[in-house]
Formats: sequence, C-alpha cells, structure tokens
Amino acid sequence: MNAPTDIKLYMEDVGRRARAAARVLARSGTDAKNCALLAIASAVRRDLAGLLAANAEDVAAARAAGKDSAFIDRLALTGKSVEAMAQGLEQVASLSDPVGEVSELRERPSGIKVGKMRVPLGVIGVIYESRPNVTADAAALCLKSGNATILRGGSESIRSNRAIAACLHEGLRVAGLPEDAVQVVDTADRAAVGELLQMDRYVDIIVPRGGKGLIERIMAESRIPVIKHLDGVCHVYIDERADLDKAIRIADNAKTQRYGTCNTMEALLVHEAIAPRVLPPLASIYLDKGVELRCDERSRAIIRAALGAESPLVKAATEQDFYTEYLAPILSVRVVSGLDEAMEHIAKYGSQHTDAIVTEDEARARRFLREVDSSSVMVNASTRFADGFEYGLGAEIGISTDKLHARGPVGLEGLTSQKYVVFGTGQVRT
Amino acid sequence: MNAPTDIKLYMEDVGRRARAAARVLARSGTDAKNCALLAIASAVRRDLAGLLAANAEDVAAARAAGKDSAFIDRLALTGKSVEAMAQGLEQVASLSDPVGEVSELRERPSGIKVGKMRVPLGVIGVIYESRPNVTADAAALCLKSGNATILRGGSESIRSNRAIAACLHEGLRVAGLPEDAVQVVDTADRAAVGELLQMDRYVDIIVPRGGKGLIERIMAESRIPVIKHLDGVCHVYIDERADLDKAIRIADNAKTQRYGTCNTMEALLVHEAIAPRVLPPLASIYLDKGVELRCDERSRAIIRAALGAESPLVKAATEQDFYTEYLAPILSVRVVSGLDEAMEHIAKYGSQHTDAIVTEDEARARRFLREVDSSSVMVNASTRFADGFEYGLGAEIGISTDKLHARGPVGLEGLTSQKYVVFGTGQVRT
Repeated sequence: MNAPTDIKLYMEDVGRRARAAARVLARSGTDAKNCALLAIASAVRRDLAGLLAANAEDVAAARAAGKDSAFIDRLALTGKSVEAMAQGLEQVASLSDPVGEVSELRERPSGIKVGKMRVPLGVIGVIYESRPNVTADAAALCLKSGNATILRGGSESIRSNRAIAACLHEGLRVAGLPEDAVQVVDTADRAAVGELLQMDRYVDIIVPRGGKGLIERIMAESRIPVIKHLDGVCHVYIDERADLDKAIRIADNAKTQRYGTCNTMEALLVHEAIAPRVLPPLASIYLDKGVELRCDERSRAIIRAALGAESPLVKAATEQDFYTEYLAPILSVRVVSGLDEAMEHIAKYGSQHTDAIVTEDEARARRFLREVDSSSVMVNASTRFADGFEYGLGAEIGISTDKLHARGPVGLEGLTSQKYVVFGTGQVRT
Repeated sequence: MNAPTDIKLYMEDVGRRARAAARVLARSGTDAKNCALLAIASAVRRDLAGLLAANAEDVAAARAAGKDSAFIDRLALTGKSVEAMAQGLEQVASLSDPVGEVSELRERPSGIKVGKMRVPLGVIGVIYESRPNVTADAAALCLKSGNATILRGGSESIRSNRAIAACLHEGLRVAGLPEDAVQVVDTADRAAVGELLQMDRYVDIIVPRGGKGLIERIMAESRIPVIKHLDGVCHVYIDERADLDKAIRIADNAKTQRYGTCNTMEALLVHEAIAPRVLPPLASIYLDKGVELRCDERSRAIIRAALGAESPLVKAATEQDFYTEYLAPILSVRVVSGLDEAMEHIAKYGSQHTDAIVTEDEARARRFLREVDSSSVMVNASTRFADGFEYGLGAEIGISTDKLHARGPVGLEGLTSQKYVVFGTGQVRT
C-alpha cells in the first residue's frame, strides 16, 4: 500500500472500515477467532526471514537518524523475539472467550428474565511507540475479544509493522474474517494520530502504549475515552505488626526485582515502632545493590546510626521526591506514626496504581484494603505482582489507574462491556 | 448560606470539601449510611410545611418569570410528592450495599490470592433542571453507594433545594457522617456548572438529568466522564415467526403505555411475510389511540388497503423520521425483508438504547440478542421494561447508552468501581 496523501480522508476510510469489520467480528464465533490467531502465529514463524529483513531496514534507518541504543533495543526484532510473538498469539488463542457470556440472569416479578451479556467494545485504537511486537500482541487481544483494531505504531517501525500486518491479514483471511478487523495505519505522518483521536464516531476506546509524554499528549487531545495510567508511584507500608522477614523480603523485591516497571515500589513507609528493627537490615540490602535512599529525617537518623559511616547513597528527601516515579535504583523512605499517616501519605503523594501493606494484624489489613484508593491494593505481597499474567488474566493490554470501566491490569474482559438482555414471553408493562 | 460572589473560588471549595468527605464516606459502614437515609426521610416528613412553603416561593417566582405550565408542573412539590421523596429515601436504605464486596477471589500459582473489591467512585456531580425531587433521589443513591455528591439543580428551584439540603445535612449529622458528603451548589449563577465540569481533580463522574439540550451542553464542556444517554430511538422488530398476539400486545404497549419516556418504541419494523397479518390490527389500535403513523411505502400500502378509507394519521415517512425520537404519539413504521435488514436498520438509525425482537424462533432471537449493539436488547418483551426498577436495581440514577463502565439503567452498582485486592503471605515475584 502506498503512503496516503490526504491524511484526513485516509483515516476516515480506516475508521469506516474498522466500524464495518467490528460488526462482523462481534458476531464471529470463538473458533474463527482462534483459527485466525493460530494462522497468524504460523505465518509469523514462516516469514521470520522477511520480518527480520524489514526490521533490519527500520533499525538501519533509526541508527542513521541518530537514535540511541535504548531506542534501537526496543525497535530491534530477533529470532527469539519473533518466536515469542508467535507464542503470544497461540497463548491468546488458548484463553477463554469472554464474548457472549450471559451472567446474573434473574426472573423479575413481571415475569421477564433479565441478565447481562458480555459484548465487544467495538473498535479499539492502539497508539504505541517503536516496539514492533506490540503490533501482534495488541491485535491478538483485541481480536480475541471481538474488537476491530486500528494500530498506529511509531513511524520508525513502519517497515516491521507492515511485515507483521501482512501476517495478520493472512491469518484473518484463512479464518474467513474481514481483513479490516486489524488495520495498521500505514503512514509516518504524525497527523494520523491527531485524526484518530478525533474519530469518536468510529473508535470506542484508545489504548496508548508508551512513555508518559505520549500518554499526556493523547489525554490532552483525545475525544475518545483512554485506558491508561500515567504514573506508578507505588508504596509499601511496613506496619508495626509486620512479620520482619516478610517485610524485608517484600520491600527488597518490590524495589529491586526490576527498577523500570510501573509496579515497582517508589516509596517505603515504615511504622515508627518497627523502624529501628526493619530499616537497618533493609538499608544494608539496598545499599549493597546500589539503591540510593532519599530519606525523611527520622529514617535517615535511624539508618545512619545503624550503619555507622556516612554513605553517599543515603540522602535527605525533598517534598518532590515523594511524588516521583524514579523508574531507577532510587527509593523514597519515610517513618510514619501509624496506619492513618501511611494512608494519608499514599492519598496525597500516590498515583492510585499499586500499594501494599505488610502486617499480621487483620483489622489493619482490612482497613488498608478498603481505604486505599488504588487500582491494586495488597496485603503481604510484593507490588511487582500487579500484572495481567500474575493476576491470571492471561495477558494484558495495559494497566488502568482510572476508576471507570477497567481498573488495574486490563485483559480480554477489560476490552468488553456488558449489555442488558431481557427474555420475555410476551410481557408488557402495566 | 449567602450566595457566593466569586464562583471559581466557591466551586473550588465545594470540590475540595467533597473530596475530603468522599474519603470518610468510602470507609463508612452500611449502618451509618442507612441511618442517615432514614433520618433524612424523617426530616423531610417533619419539615413538610417548610418544604412546601419554600417550593411555593420558587413556583411564584417561576410564574412571575413567565414559565409555562409544564415547567411549573416539574417544579411544584405537593404533599404527595414529598411523601414519595421520603419513601424513596427509605427504599434506598433497604437496598443492599455494594461497597466492600469481594468477588472472583482465586489463588494463583505464585500463592497470592487475587480478587476484586467493589468501591465507591468518589465524588459524583449531578446536574439537573427544575425537579426538586432529584435532589433527594440522587443524594440517596450516591450516599448509599459511598460517594460524595455535588448537586446542581436549576436556579428556579433553589429555595426548594436549600430546604431539602437542610434535611440532608440533618440526616448526615444524625448518622455521624460529614455534612459535606452531600453539597447543594447554592448559587443561581450558571457559571457554577462550567466550573463543576472542569474540576476533574475533585469530581469523578458527572450525571446529567434533564433534556437533550442540557446533556449536549455538558458533553461538549465536560472534562469529566459523563453517564448519559442522548436519545432513545427504540425499535420493536416483529419477525416472520412472531406469535401474532404477543407481537400486537408488545408493539401496542411499547408505543402507547407512555409516550414521553426514553424507552418508548419510536420505530416499528415488520417482516414482509407477516406484515399483511400484523399491520392492519396494529394500525387500528394505534389510530384508535390517536397515534400518527409515518410509514414507508410498503407498510403504508398494507395499512391503506386493509383499513380502506384514507386516514389523516397515516403518512409517508421521510428518511429523517427514522432517526427521530418523537416522545409523542407518532410512530415510524417500515416493512423489512428479514432479520438482517432489521438489524441493519437498527444499526443505522438507532441510538443504542433499547431494541426488541418478537419471534418464536430461538436462533433468530439469539442472533438479535448478540448482534444488536444496544444497552438493552429484548426478546418478546416491551421496550418499556428498560428501567432500573423493572430490572431489579431498586432505583436508577439514569440510563447509559455508552459502552464503557455502566451500560443501560445505572443503579448503585454503576456508581461503584472494582479494584484488585491481593492477599499474600509474604510472596515476592521471581
């Protein structure tokens, strides 16, 4: 396909086709959708050489444009990552299909039976950056949930995305599904994103995948609801009644298992009564791993007193530090007077993503679970578990920190909605 | 309270107070919320004379301002309508509390248990016109679902709303709940609505109650998600395999039981094979009741042939008629070639509110249920059943034709959201 010249007309056509395909897809059975997913997986494996060649062109162009090595890493495909793509498609095929499921069916005094039926949202717009594997991953989840998809990846990955799109369309054809069920926006023109975000008559939801800059831009511009989270300022609160071993294990894992993920702990809150026992061993672990600690006065005094010599990694926190998602080996630390102060802190500085309490006190655990207003709230577990796979969703299209519709990791069910269905035998209202 | 002078500062203060009250309300138990609802009901009954006096002032001012009698009807309170308000409050108290309910709890291979907990949305802004009873109804549903509410009624009902607000605040005080949990915006300045719609840092959702003009204005201006439906262009499709008696009963009731409601049928679609048998008796019923029929050519020919003489109530439909929500004794009528054409018609002209099929054919009923993309889809029942009370929600704050979050009649559950809760015993991610 040649690059379109009039972006507005081109996107209008993409939207119209997506809406038409969505209607066909919504009534397609599980077998056809699974058949398409497996056929796409097999096309991806068969076309490995072609995918890698197209990707090599993207990589060469990105290098020539002076992109940094982190960018190239995200852009580059390998035999291994293409195989992972194929396995991801097969895995989505193996998930159960939420569409058509009727629940909560109840007979009413009038004699009608009322229930809810799970149905696709319709058309999903996915806007992402340079990772080509998102093309296959997002298409798979949207397809399985019965939604048509408009995929708009970064312009630097356009050759890779075209090659993956060819596999997607082949799989759809094999299964007898409309090729327009998955469309890859085939233009490097950034105006296409602006158009997509205005097409509320064709697109039901926008899923951005990428950095905060991308998401902020989409939020500001979109007329369509967006499934997103901006920040992951996640907390672990170690309560006075925490088991020390669990507290240390969880606080270590939540920070250091991976530094760059949205569910990584960014601030540690410690009850004043347990701080002298838990902070010294934890600080040793963090400092050994090269984690910089930005401490309030009390935590800093305890750590310094315990560890003796001044460490350049133990610093004084500023107010701003507590609002910060470091995505790096840096941790904010604060001593609090108890559960209430911990929850006040989370309400003020947190981002409603994921927060955990470590305690053996059931009443406090219950209060924390109920009162902390975040998309995932945990007791005695690492914040790193906030993830579609760990939660058993099979896969996730993203994590939402919004309160409406889907909250937390969003899997197939989050890409569907429920309508009311009514079964009567001729009833009328009196 | 005196009318505020600086609307921006005033609304900012209202928002801040609502957010603070929402945190208290979210952790309040069912008993306290029910106690408040019952105390409000009793205050409303006790203050009957005062409420009627305040309302009489509003009515007098509205008359003086030249408002029409339909407006005065909506504005005026009577002993009976105040008693209905009190009973509505008691009825909401008797509904079960969705907040805190944990569902779908499952143990994962990692050993953590993952479930979902139902929680309030936070702060709900309700914008309505002149009906003072909305003040009590909306406050009751939001309070029971654990949400703080900002109520902004029409400026013409401000004295009535102040009097109702006094009862609301008394009830909250009696129950030990913060008075700011329900705030009535106490200014006739229309700029208050504009401010409210921008306060996305304080308000989680907007519920408009009123005519299409109000809702369109709110949709255009709001930075906050809106629970709404614009139109109710509802259809009944009488299939070839319909039971004739059921078809006539349902098509009669769906149109004529009430003309002005959003779930009233506005267009009747009839299979060509059954049209000669079902249209003549139905047309007689409609014409007897004074319903004007706007017919496509085929239905007009059948009706004229059967009923003989030319009736001034049998007219030719224009294309625009099929898009129209009449809210009046007028009905669009069309003969279709079958289920597919009926569903195409609904997809093109409908408003995704409520649509029904009359058929004894299970396969066709299943297709209609699955493929018609409306918030309520029915088999062999009148569209007039699309209602929170009829569906067993106990009450409704409105009906949503959007696909995200709540769809169809929105009751207590639609004013809540689900967050993930994780129960561990020290698990970390590997």
